[in-house]
Amino acid sequence: MRCFRPRRAADEVDKLVKRPLVSGDVREGGESSTSQLSRIMRPDDANIMGNVHGGTILKMIEEAGCIIGTRHCNTQNGDRCLAALVRVEKTEFLSPVFIGEVAHVTAEITYTSKHSLEVQVQVMAENILTGAMKLSNKAALWYVPVSLKNVDKIMEVPPIKYASAEQAEEGKKRYEAQKLERLETKTRIKDVVSPPSNPEQHTVGFSQSSLIHLVGPSDCTLHDCVHGGVTMKLMDEVAGIVAARHCNTNIVTASVDVINFHRTIKKGCVVTVTGHLTFVSNKSMEIEVIVDASPLMETEKGKYHAVSAYFIFISLDKYNRTLPVPPLKIEGEEQQRSFEEGKARYLQNKAKRLAEKERQQ
Amino acid sequence: MRCFRPRRAADEVDKLVKRPLVSGDVREGGESSTSQLSRIMRPDDANIMGNVHGGTILKMIEEAGCIIGTRHCNTQNGDRCLAALVRVEKTEFLSPVFIGEVAHVTAEITYTSKHSLEVQVQVMAENILTGAMKLSNKAALWYVPVSLKNVDKIMEVPPIKYASAEQAEEGKKRYEAQKLERLETKTRIKDVVSPPSNPEQHTVGFSQSSLIHLVGPSDCTLHDCVHGGVTMKLMDEVAGIVAARHCNTNIVTASVDVINFHRTIKKGCVVTVTGHLTFVSNKSMEIEVIVDASPLMETEKGKYHAVSAYFIFISLDKYNRTLPVPPLKIEGEEQQRSFEEGKARYLQNKAKRLAEKERQQ
Amino acid sequence: MRCFRPRRAADEVDKLVKRPLVSGDVREGGESSTSQLSRIMRPDDANIMGNVHGGTILKMIEEAGCIIGTRHCNTQNGDRCLAALVRVEKTEFLSPVFIGEVAHVTAEITYTSKHSLEVQVQVMAENILTGAMKLSNKAALWYVPVSLKNVDKIMEVPPIKYASAEQAEEGKKRYEAQKLERLETKTRIKDVVSPPSNPEQHTVGFSQSSLIHLVGPSDCTLHDCVHGGVTMKLMDEVAGIVAARHCNTNIVTASVDVINFHRTIKKGCVVTVTGHLTFVSNKSMEIEVIVDASPLMETEKGKYHAVSAYFIFISLDKYNRTLPVPPLKIEGEEQQRSFEEGKARYLQNKAKRLAEKERQQ
Repeated sequence: MRCFRPRRAADEVDKLVKRPLVSGDVREGGESSTSQLSRIMRPDDANIMGNVHGGTILKMIEEAGCIIGTRHCNTQNGDRCLAALVRVEKTEFLSPVFIGEVAHVTAEITYTSKHSLEVQVQVMAENILTGAMKLSNKAALWYVPVSLKNVDKIMEVPPIKYASAEQAEEGKKRYEAQKLERLETKTRIKDVVSPPSNPEQHTVGFSQSSLIHLVGPSDCTLHDCVHGGVTMKLMDEVAGIVAARHCNTNIVTASVDVINFHRTIKKGCVVTVTGHLTFVSNKSMEIEVIVDASPLMETEKGKYHAVSAYFIFISLDKYNRTLPVPPLKIEGEEQQRSFEEGKARYLQNKAKRLAEKERQQ
Repeated sequence: MRCFRPRRAADEVDKLVKRPLVSGDVREGGESSTSQLSRIMRPDDANIMGNVHGGTILKMIEEAGCIIGTRHCNTQNGDRCLAALVRVEKTEFLSPVFIGEVAHVTAEITYTSKHSLEVQVQVMAENILTGAMKLSNKAALWYVPVSLKNVDKIMEVPPIKYASAEQAEEGKKRYEAQKLERLETKTRIKDVVSPPSNPEQHTVGFSQSSLIHLVGPSDCTLHDCVHGGVTMKLMDEVAGIVAARHCNTNIVTASVDVINFHRTIKKGCVVTVTGHLTFVSNKSMEIEVIVDASPLMETEKGKYHAVSAYFIFISLDKYNRTLPVPPLKIEGEEQQRSFEEGKARYLQNKAKRLAEKERQQ
Repeated sequence: MRCFRPRRAADEVDKLVKRPLVSGDVREGGESSTSQLSRIMRPDDANIMGNVHGGTILKMIEEAGCIIGTRHCNTQNGDRCLAALVRVEKTEFLSPVFIGEVAHVTAEITYTSKHSLEVQVQVMAENILTGAMKLSNKAALWYVPVSLKNVDKIMEVPPIKYASAEQAEEGKKRYEAQKLERLETKTRIKDVVSPPSNPEQHTVGFSQSSLIHLVGPSDCTLHDCVHGGVTMKLMDEVAGIVAARHCNTNIVTASVDVINFHRTIKKGCVVTVTGHLTFVSNKSMEIEVIVDASPLMETEKGKYHAVSAYFIFISLDKYNRTLPVPPLKIEGEEQQRSFEEGKARYLQNKAKRLAEKERQQ
């Protein structure tokens, strides 16, 4: 699951950052460009074992995507706009990042449709003491440009130039696939079930957790909507609490399934993030995280369902080796159904990974 | 004083949170409801021994109270309002909370008068690795709803339903008692003597400022020394306060003179940053900032002088144009000497800038 | 003083970042390399007028310098080390940076001596909505590599390759000049006179502390008033410093007496929090904390007394057992009166607790 590639993995960053960072040329040309964020990982970015939270990485990824997307969409005349996150594709955490390492997040626009754009992001972690570089993460995010004057108005996206016709074709396939899926999930919205009082250990109810967060100014972009990255960080935090309650060990995010952002969350909202186990394999836990938002001051509108996603966590010993996970005690038909669905996702992902490995050999 | 109750102490939380976390029903009925905040305690929430600061807990308690109070008071027609804290009853910290534990803050409205409401809050700390739960804290807070349109207007509080007449009666007693006490302190507070030294405006003493900062983990590098950048940020903050006090306008940093770091500052130190005006020209202020550090736990070593520097600030109007700065009233020989030295630095810099300009032409 | 250079100013960044960002080659070659940090400026990075604090920029500059310096010095065999900041040359802020802009900090090693290295840093601010780029800042920092095993051991710096002999010569001149100046200030610093009042240990004056806090957006509610919880957190912080100074041990908050909030504190205020010991029993300390607020921009109103409260702290050993507290040395009648009042509160609380215990049995 991990891949430590010392030294020369820096080549990989080099390849990605083949062009100067802050390329002014996108302004005129309209071709795709890259953007990079780097910073040292601090104690507050990590758990007590020193492993940087998946949520910290997700937040940096989204900031890089928002910068490059906003920059790209403001090159034409018309209203000023901000790139708003609408979807994150399945994301895998390939190797743990530690306090003191420097995380380098590189983002590139890889596809544009009329009203949306795809950003691909790569996260490298650099140990500045040993020089070791490792690939921590790859992600793909979809943004739409929202007018600063009118939050309900979606602007047009200037097209990028593709290196080849094939590249454009592949981008279009990804675009069509995610569009279809986003429509589907829009209808599928679930209610949070309240946990039973006094749950038995290793049941779903035992580890179910939720947190409330009052959206403050630092969580928001220029038009007072919560950054997608802030929401993802909260989701990872809750999923982490669920996982730790289930196995009482050091746990880390292994991957995050697709996340769709159907509605933006505004400043002054109270956000409730709830997580519960849906499936447990030998060595991994799947946690469904649901985000509800309700404006504190406007009763009429009431609570609404903002985001949901599946987080996969694994349990580690002190040498960062994977530990077995206690089985999940299922209670009732609904939990059984969720478990079966989770198992199907698990087997599908496993098959995909195997197929990819074989293809690479 | 402490009470570690493993596992089944969770019952206590359960009893309190017997109803769904963010119960929406308050919206219709008007009966009392509960609200809960949970989050993991991070290194920055605690002192260097890992004990979570009482202040961190107090802040969470108030956030929970503010959310439930604001939500309750916005169920009726009328201006939108925010619950503003007016009083916290005596609060005891029953057991220490540590980094990595999850603090659960549960708040409930327990009494409403016409213009105020009482919120009772309970804090449980959960060790998610062992499952141990302990009661850390109980508190009672009083809020009044303040109109968002007019901060001086106190709104009416919708009444809650009490479980019994006795409950209502007891609440009323608490209400009357605190009301009386608040009136008392209000009159007593007027007697508080202002600090004897009340320096004249525009003197050095008038704007002189200092701040104390307790070095936390996020301020430090891997070998537990404060990042130079953290120290410089604190210095700029104090210099900004001095400058703003002197001219009561929007001020910004124009330049910083050489800074030498002769001694490193270690984790757990208390850093005292002091700033005072040394020189004022037509359009700029020079502020000397001195940083002292003293280890909190080792008296022998005592306070030492860590860093000092001169910051130059300018004053801006709302179009970001430079404004004239009020002249500095000098008192005594030492201030006069400092002023002359500052003037020399100012003239030297001005000459340098001119020379550079000429060279470039 | 300002220099807005739209569009093509990006060339300047391009020139600086001519080589790939995370160049692995420095590891082998030893030639100079660049490092870049970027991030969006948030409300918390700026003052209430939206101008980003100079301190925020200084902190980013130093982080970039620390990364590139540490990376450079760990390319050889020998102890792992961290680059510790020893000096920052005079720094000018050429144009203001605003919330929502992206700050790009680019650092380059420009000179190496046997035991130190010079890093030159450039800060560009990018308005991602308009594409405007401006040079905000240039700085030069000096670092020495400090061994991670032994903080007092300065390591050797691998030499960089210079583009020309002239470049090396100029670097050497800068090196010699700053070395001389640092030695001078080192001797001058010894002359800095300690504050005249040098209170005796265990007196009230010895541990008395105060801090200043400039109210930022994250401290405030939706109507721009400070959250009561934020104020309480600051009060607890000061009380903790007073307690730690008195006993030089690990101290924790045991309880907080009633707090009344008579006046709200608005955004943009400077809050001064002062704490001093009023009473010390065998095993506890009572600290009175007083909060004053003064609006930075409106002189007329002046400072006012906002809140005050008594905090009780206890001292703990490493097993979290209560330790005895050194007695308080009282000076003067006023302190004696405060002490007697504190003692009365202490005895009253003790009696209450006893009564409660008996009732429960």
